[in-house]
Amino acid sequence: MKILITGGAGFLGQRLAHALLKNVQKQPLTELVLADIAPLRDAALVADRRVRSVTGDLAQQLTDGLLHGVDGVFHLAAAVSGECEADIDVGLRTNLDSTRVLLDTCRTLSKPPRLVFSSSLAVFGGTMPTVIADYTLPQPQNSYGTQKFICEQLIADYTRKGYIDGRNVRLPTVTVRPGKPNKAASGFMSGIIREPLAGADAICPVDPATGVWITSPRFAVAGLIAAYQTSQEQWGSRTAMNLPGLSVRVAEIIEALRRSAGATVAARVRVEIDETISNIVGGWPWRFDTARARALGLSGPLTMDDLVAEYVADYPAAVST
Amino acid sequence: MKILITGGAGFLGQRLAHALLKNVQKQPLTELVLADIAPLRDAALVADRRVRSVTGDLAQQLTDGLLHGVDGVFHLAAAVSGECEADIDVGLRTNLDSTRVLLDTCRTLSKPPRLVFSSSLAVFGGTMPTVIADYTLPQPQNSYGTQKFICEQLIADYTRKGYIDGRNVRLPTVTVRPGKPNKAASGFMSGIIREPLAGADAICPVDPATGVWITSPRFAVAGLIAAYQTSQEQWGSRTAMNLPGLSVRVAEIIEALRRSAGATVAARVRVEIDETISNIVGGWPWRFDTARARALGLSGPLTMDDLVAEYVADYPAAVST
Repeated sequence: MKILITGGAGFLGQRLAHALLKNVQKQPLTELVLADIAPLRDAALVADRRVRSVTGDLAQQLTDGLLHGVDGVFHLAAAVSGECEADIDVGLRTNLDSTRVLLDTCRTLSKPPRLVFSSSLAVFGGTMPTVIADYTLPQPQNSYGTQKFICEQLIADYTRKGYIDGRNVRLPTVTVRPGKPNKAASGFMSGIIREPLAGADAICPVDPATGVWITSPRFAVAGLIAAYQTSQEQWGSRTAMNLPGLSVRVAEIIEALRRSAGATVAARVRVEIDETISNIVGGWPWRFDTARARALGLSGPLTMDDLVAEYVADYPAAVST
Repeated sequence: MKILITGGAGFLGQRLAHALLKNVQKQPLTELVLADIAPLRDAALVADRRVRSVTGDLAQQLTDGLLHGVDGVFHLAAAVSGECEADIDVGLRTNLDSTRVLLDTCRTLSKPPRLVFSSSLAVFGGTMPTVIADYTLPQPQNSYGTQKFICEQLIADYTRKGYIDGRNVRLPTVTVRPGKPNKAASGFMSGIIREPLAGADAICPVDPATGVWITSPRFAVAGLIAAYQTSQEQWGSRTAMNLPGLSVRVAEIIEALRRSAGATVAARVRVEIDETISNIVGGWPWRFDTARARALGLSGPLTMDDLVAEYVADYPAAVST
């Protein structure tokens, strides 16, 4: 089996690659293509003989035969929320146009590939019910969410037409991400744990009373793989599936850090409100009914402490205190 | 004031043009541009000195300065449902890509134009509540509906960003349309009235028990103009507004024809099931709660008899019996 991960050199792409290479799926993985605009740096992935890394513009790669012989695609490549809000053209090109090229290239394959699309809770906003379900109307209040929601529609229609076997998965904010901050409006949720644990100061750009909907890297990867492995019948509706997560206020994230690493470390978080980030993140929902995903056996982290503990366990070298 | 109607030589575009030329809007209309892939044939419109007709590909026309000096746009141009289902590329190009070019050209104007987009009940499908509201999740089950829904999202986001002042309006099926049949899956709803009244046979391609959601040309035009004239505050949410209409079963359309023109005329309708049309039309909802539109004073035809009578009054030359 040959699988492609777009955004494969990104944080989640690399985590997913490691999981897939353990052959958790039914058929053995013979080739794993990691396509990304950035070069692949993970040494273990670079060294794996089953891994082929392709660097450059996704649309161009697709034109150049990226999908040749591919059985399945995890489409993670995207411009992040802060970037899309700052420049709508970047978002439209990266998130919408590239997905169009991907889907239209899928149509040329002899067998419709299975395709898992990582959408986001950012599709939701505006006037919402207190608890969000899969059948809640998304009313995106930012360009990133709009573009993700549009791609969901295209993937549902291409699936209906039989061009692909697509599954739309909406991820909660994935926290704690290792490494450097990116331009996602949600990036601080990782930063306020990661930086203090590494001995650095961190800024919390939203009111700590803000509620957020988060999951850990392990649960996010498990959700993506389950979406890939589940049969179309079990999957059901082509409407996107909200993955399970944890509903917490930002203050609780800082509290969990304090419990894990002490008051001195937690004191490295300074609240400094950023209007743009507060508007984007504050407009997202944070309470979800994920009955459909849970019926498939999917789950999320149970407590904020679990989430911090997972980071400390998975990235010990990033923890200096 | 200068207004552009895309699809301006189409049936609804011409009806809208006639209404706008009566200066129902607050500011006098100085120029009305009717852009269409087909030439404008309506003699009264051709003769009106305020009307300029432009024929050809919309994207090309936009590149050639179609929006120069425009204050408002009614975006009606679209490939119809049957056409989009038969060839997804035609739909994507005509309905999605052209709208992208339109919106991006709007961004280059010094003042964001007001833009009314004619979306459709075809965005709905799949598992639905019995009664559809503006906040019901669309789950399009055909490519036309998917493309219309995607355009709604783009227009909402461009409005949020201040590039346009957009309003998304979802029209019920507009019946009775004069002239020749088009490739819309819903076209028969006009045909089973229009053809028998003209002395010709007509085919009803769906089970007469099928429920449909329809409005008349007069009410459709009134809805589009109201969407244009209402302030953004009154309009409210950027989520599309479902226009009021009439919930009837197809058999009731034929019954109204019988009441209006007699049993001999009604007997010219022959039921001959077409699977493709039945699947598309049978998948659309037909009961709507249009409270938001009604709060703006909008309404729809009260009875099927009104709808037939409107056609007979507006197109006397098309009625031979």
